[in-house]
Amino acid sequence: MKHYTDPIQADLQAFESHFKSTLRSPIPLLDIILRYLVKRKGKQLRPALVFLTARLTGLPITERTHRGAALVELMHTATLIHDDVVDDSPIRRGFFSINALWKNKGAVLVGDYLLSRVLLLAVEHQDHDLLYHVSSSVKAMSEGELLQLEKARRLDIVESVYYEIIEKKTASLMASCCGVGAASTGADAAAVEAVRRFGLALGMAFQIRDDLLDYRQYDQTGKPNGIDIKEHKMTLPLIYALQQADPAERKSMIRTVKKDADRPDRVQALMDRVVALGGVSYAEATMHRYKEEAVEHLNHFPDSDAKEALRLLAEFVVARKK
Amino acid sequence: MKHYTDPIQADLQAFESHFKSTLRSPIPLLDIILRYLVKRKGKQLRPALVFLTARLTGLPITERTHRGAALVELMHTATLIHDDVVDDSPIRRGFFSINALWKNKGAVLVGDYLLSRVLLLAVEHQDHDLLYHVSSSVKAMSEGELLQLEKARRLDIVESVYYEIIEKKTASLMASCCGVGAASTGADAAAVEAVRRFGLALGMAFQIRDDLLDYRQYDQTGKPNGIDIKEHKMTLPLIYALQQADPAERKSMIRTVKKDADRPDRVQALMDRVVALGGVSYAEATMHRYKEEAVEHLNHFPDSDAKEALRLLAEFVVARKK
Repeated sequence: MKHYTDPIQADLQAFESHFKSTLRSPIPLLDIILRYLVKRKGKQLRPALVFLTARLTGLPITERTHRGAALVELMHTATLIHDDVVDDSPIRRGFFSINALWKNKGAVLVGDYLLSRVLLLAVEHQDHDLLYHVSSSVKAMSEGELLQLEKARRLDIVESVYYEIIEKKTASLMASCCGVGAASTGADAAAVEAVRRFGLALGMAFQIRDDLLDYRQYDQTGKPNGIDIKEHKMTLPLIYALQQADPAERKSMIRTVKKDADRPDRVQALMDRVVALGGVSYAEATMHRYKEEAVEHLNHFPDSDAKEALRLLAEFVVARKK
Repeated sequence: MKHYTDPIQADLQAFESHFKSTLRSPIPLLDIILRYLVKRKGKQLRPALVFLTARLTGLPITERTHRGAALVELMHTATLIHDDVVDDSPIRRGFFSINALWKNKGAVLVGDYLLSRVLLLAVEHQDHDLLYHVSSSVKAMSEGELLQLEKARRLDIVESVYYEIIEKKTASLMASCCGVGAASTGADAAAVEAVRRFGLALGMAFQIRDDLLDYRQYDQTGKPNGIDIKEHKMTLPLIYALQQADPAERKSMIRTVKKDADRPDRVQALMDRVVALGGVSYAEATMHRYKEEAVEHLNHFPDSDAKEALRLLAEFVVARKK
C-alpha cells in the first residue's frame, strides 16, 4: 500500500461525483457559489476517514456510508466557510474565501444552507445515529472557537485549556467522521467507541501538526512565517516555552505577542526563543504520543487493508508539510 | 378572549423558565452572550404558534410540544443572529445586536452553537419528525436570503419573485412552527398539513405587514422612514407601483432607489408616488387575502379556544404596529 486512499479509491470516486451532482441549486447565486466550492475542494481527509473506518468494521459498505461521507464533508465545508468569516480570512485552500468574494453576507448564508442540507439529508433517510455524531461536533466546534476567542483576548492559555480548545475545534470533527463511518455499517457500540477514540487522538495530533507548521524554519510550507503569533493565537510550542521561561523573559515574550506581532524581526526572535526553550520539540513529542494513542485504538479490530491504511493516514497526519 | 396567548399562558410561562435555564454554558464568554440573548427576547410569536397549533389538534400537550417550542425558538434566535451579520445591523429588538457587541466572529459562532443545540435537542429525544419541519425551514430561509441578495443587486424583483422570497424567508418558519406544534401531539398527516398551510399563509401576511410598516406615514411605528428603500429592498408596495408607472416614471423611480436612497426628500417623494400609484392599498389587500386564506385552513379543525386564539393571532399579525 502506497497511500491511505488505496483501498477506497472506488468509494472516493463515487462519492466525489455524487457530491458534485447534489451540490446544485435552482437559485443562480447559490448555484454559482456551490460550483465554486466544489472546484476548490480540499484533501478529502474526512470522507476518507468515513470510508476507511466503515471498512475497518469488516461489515459491508452501504448507501449509508456514502451518505455519512456526504454529511461530514458538507458539514466540514459549512464550518470552514463560517471560520473564514470568524477569522476574516481572504484565502482558503489557495482560492479566495467565500467571504472575500461574496462578503460576510454570502458566506454566512451559504454556510447555513449547507448545514441545513446536512440536516435534511440525514433526516430524510432516517440516519439519526449518523446525525447525532455530526451534531455533537457542530456544538463542540462552535464552543471551541468561542473558548479560543475568549482566551486569546487575554493571552492566558495554559496547556490544559489548549488541549480543550483543539479537542473541541478540530479533534471532535475527526472523531465524528470515524463514528459516522463505523456506525454506518451497523457496527456495535464498542467498535464505534474505539474508532471515535482513534479519531479524537488523530485530530489532536493533526492540530498540533498544524500549529507546528507555523514554525516554518523547521518545515518548508507555503504559509507565511509566524502567522499564529501575528494573530495572537497561543499554540503549544509557545505555551510550553512560556512555562519554561523565567518570569522576566515570560513577560517580555508576552509583550511581543501583544504589541510587536506586526514586527517581523521581533516575531522571528520570539520564535527562535520558543525553539531554544524546547517548545517545538515538546509539541512534536506530544503530537507523536497522540498519534501512538490513535494507532493503539485500531487494535480493537483485526488486521485488514483498512487498518493498514488508517495507520498510514496517522503517519501522514504527523508528517504532512501542509 | 382578549389576547391570543390567553389559552396558553401556563404553557408559555413553563416554556420561558425552562428555556432560560437550558441556555447556559460552562464557557464564560458563551454564557455571557446567552444571558444577553435571553434578556432581549422577542414577542415569542413562534412558541405561541407551537402551543396553539398543538392545542388545536385536540390531543394532549406533552413534553414533545415543549421541546418543539424550544426547537423553533432556538432556531429563530440563531437565524436572527446570523441575519444581523448578513444585514450588518447594529440593533435588534431595541438592544445592540450580537455582531455589534461581539463582532461578526461572536455572532456567527453563537448562531452555529444555537443551531447545534437545536439538532442535539431533537436527536437526543428522537424527535425526528419535529427536526424535519425545522430543518426544511433553515434551508428555505438561507435560500430566500440568497435569492433576495441576488435580486436586490439588480433591482429586478417582480411580484412572483417577491412572493417566492418572503415565502422562503419568513413564511417557511411560521409553517414549520405550526407543523411542529401539530406533529408534537401525534396528529395525523392531514391535520399537520392543514396547520402548515395556515402557518405559510400567515407568514406571507406577516411579512407583507412588515413591509407595509416601512411606509410609516400610514402607521405610527418607531421605525425610521423608508428604511427598506434606503437599503435597496424591493417590497410589494414599490413593486406594484413600478408595474403601474409608465416607462419614464418607472426609470426615474428606480434611479431614486439606486442613486438617491440617502436623500430623505427623494425617498419621501418616491414613497408618496408609491401610495398614489396604489402600491400601499394593493399590498394591504394582498395581505388581507393571505390572512383570510390562513383562517380558512383552520376550518379543518372543530371550534376550540385554540382555534379562536389562532384567529385572533391572525388579526394581530395584520394589525400590528411593530
